[in-house]
Amino acid sequence: MNINPWENAREMYEHDNCAQQMGIEILEMGEGFARLSMLITSAMLNGHKNCHGGPLFTLADTAFAYACNSQGRAAVASGCSIDFLRPGNLGDRLTATAQVRSQGRQTGVYDIEIINQHEKTVALFRGRSHRIDTTVSGAKQ
Amino acid sequence: MNINPWENAREMYEHDNCAQQMGIEILEMGEGFARLSMLITSAMLNGHKNCHGGPLFTLADTAFAYACNSQGRAAVASGCSIDFLRPGNLGDRLTATAQVRSQGRQTGVYDIEIINQHEKTVALFRGRSHRIDTTVSGAKQ
Amino acid sequence: MNINPWENAREMYEHDNCAQQMGIEILEMGEGFARLSMLITSAMLNGHKNCHGGPLFTLADTAFAYACNSQGRAAVASGCSIDFLRPGNLGDRLTATAQVRSQGRQTGVYDIEIINQHEKTVALFRGRSHRIDTTVSGAKQ
Amino acid sequence: MNINPWENAREMYEHDNCAQQMGIEILEMGEGFARLSMLITSAMLNGHKNCHGGPLFTLADTAFAYACNSQGRAAVASGCSIDFLRPGNLGDRLTATAQVRSQGRQTGVYDIEIINQHEKTVALFRGRSHRIDTTVSGAKQ
Repeated sequence: MNINPWENAREMYEHDNCAQQMGIEILEMGEGFARLSMLITSAMLNGHKNCHGGPLFTLADTAFAYACNSQGRAAVASGCSIDFLRPGNLGDRLTATAQVRSQGRQTGVYDIEIINQHEKTVALFRGRSHRIDTTVSGAKQ
Repeated sequence: MNINPWENAREMYEHDNCAQQMGIEILEMGEGFARLSMLITSAMLNGHKNCHGGPLFTLADTAFAYACNSQGRAAVASGCSIDFLRPGNLGDRLTATAQVRSQGRQTGVYDIEIINQHEKTVALFRGRSHRIDTTVSGAKQ
Repeated sequence: MNINPWENAREMYEHDNCAQQMGIEILEMGEGFARLSMLITSAMLNGHKNCHGGPLFTLADTAFAYACNSQGRAAVASGCSIDFLRPGNLGDRLTATAQVRSQGRQTGVYDIEIINQHEKTVALFRGRSHRIDTTVSGAKQ
Repeated sequence: MNINPWENAREMYEHDNCAQQMGIEILEMGEGFARLSMLITSAMLNGHKNCHGGPLFTLADTAFAYACNSQGRAAVASGCSIDFLRPGNLGDRLTATAQVRSQGRQTGVYDIEIINQHEKTVALFRGRSHRIDTTVSGAKQ
């Protein structure tokens, strides 16, 4: 089992079509920790000309995934909640920071905050993770 | 103020880059009601080869948006929660049905269920909406 | 394992100091279903002279517990969310109806609605349950 | 408008039957901050002999209320979520710490953590508040 957070992240990212497609970049990795960034493009706008909630959720959820898989045991999300505090605008550079709040043998709770380039909070996300029986690299345990 | 749900939906969809980009289609519209569908493509997969939570959220959130704007008053999401019950797989045809649970003068609560082509529930989503001071077509009230 | 919802409910209620203390009554039981009622007393009021969120949550959470234990396998709550739609006032007779939305082998999602004596919705609650390794009567499985 | 957090708290507590009834004590107050404590009594136990989710929620929700009213503007909860991480047992001395995460003109988001006497996390709570048009002491604004 690989417990180097950066190596786990690289392995995940290689197969993570969704994160690549959205232009999500990994800035920092640690145990139970991940910091990612994303630029709001015109493809992410909704009918109100703001960033759709979907891409904001995707960024936060991706930071969550990298943080809760950082210890080498594969984990998936069982449920998440998100509070939208400020609109995201075209061209904003968003940063999502995920931090473990609690990690038991099977389940964990992680908090993710999305800020914009002015360091204003755009969204707060909380995710519950559930470990499955493989490592991040896919080996059965 | 336009209170024809289908006309509101068409007006929103025209500017909804995100929904168009994801291939989301509107199947049914009603007052406080929307049914949308989406196909899981390879661009939506995560490192575990399942559909990333982000596109699932985006589909549910889009159904929520069309339902809570269906009465003609523009509304945005203030917060949402989602529970993931079953993985979404490549090629699955998902359907999201949004229904109003409560709509006050300003705030509303909507429930969205995503099912797959086998009519199995993939995710349950609950959204809180907040009306802003324009109509869906952008006119100030 | 006892799968008679009413017998499970009676067995639980006997040891349920909290529900008894709050004057919570069981009105109906079924598989994955429970309907309970509670009167708002002066001991439940907060500084704004409305019913505190705590007793409203307790009523909903109790209905949730009886519904997710109704199948005979002991289950506990892992997480819950509640939306407050209308204040509860002194003397209101509240009814909470819990219904299963999804029940897997281990985890379940249940929706609970609290209405008042005028059939107006006071709160919407969603709970996630997790089964533990005993029956409701305490026998190890 | 009184912006002394301790004076606001005292004024609220005087009318807060629910908090008094549960034996909740205020330990610390600050702007956007409150720390409260509660002892788990036998009246709080459920059928599984653990502390019912209701009293845990009530403690967290009360800490939330004191924190989001600490700035002198009256505020109520619009929605909350709670994750239960560890059971609460008879005789446990719980401490709930509430901290503002975001406070706008009308709405706020607050995080509350409940720990036990061994400094282990029992529950994580997130609340959304909505200001109403009075001060904490009841004067119309």
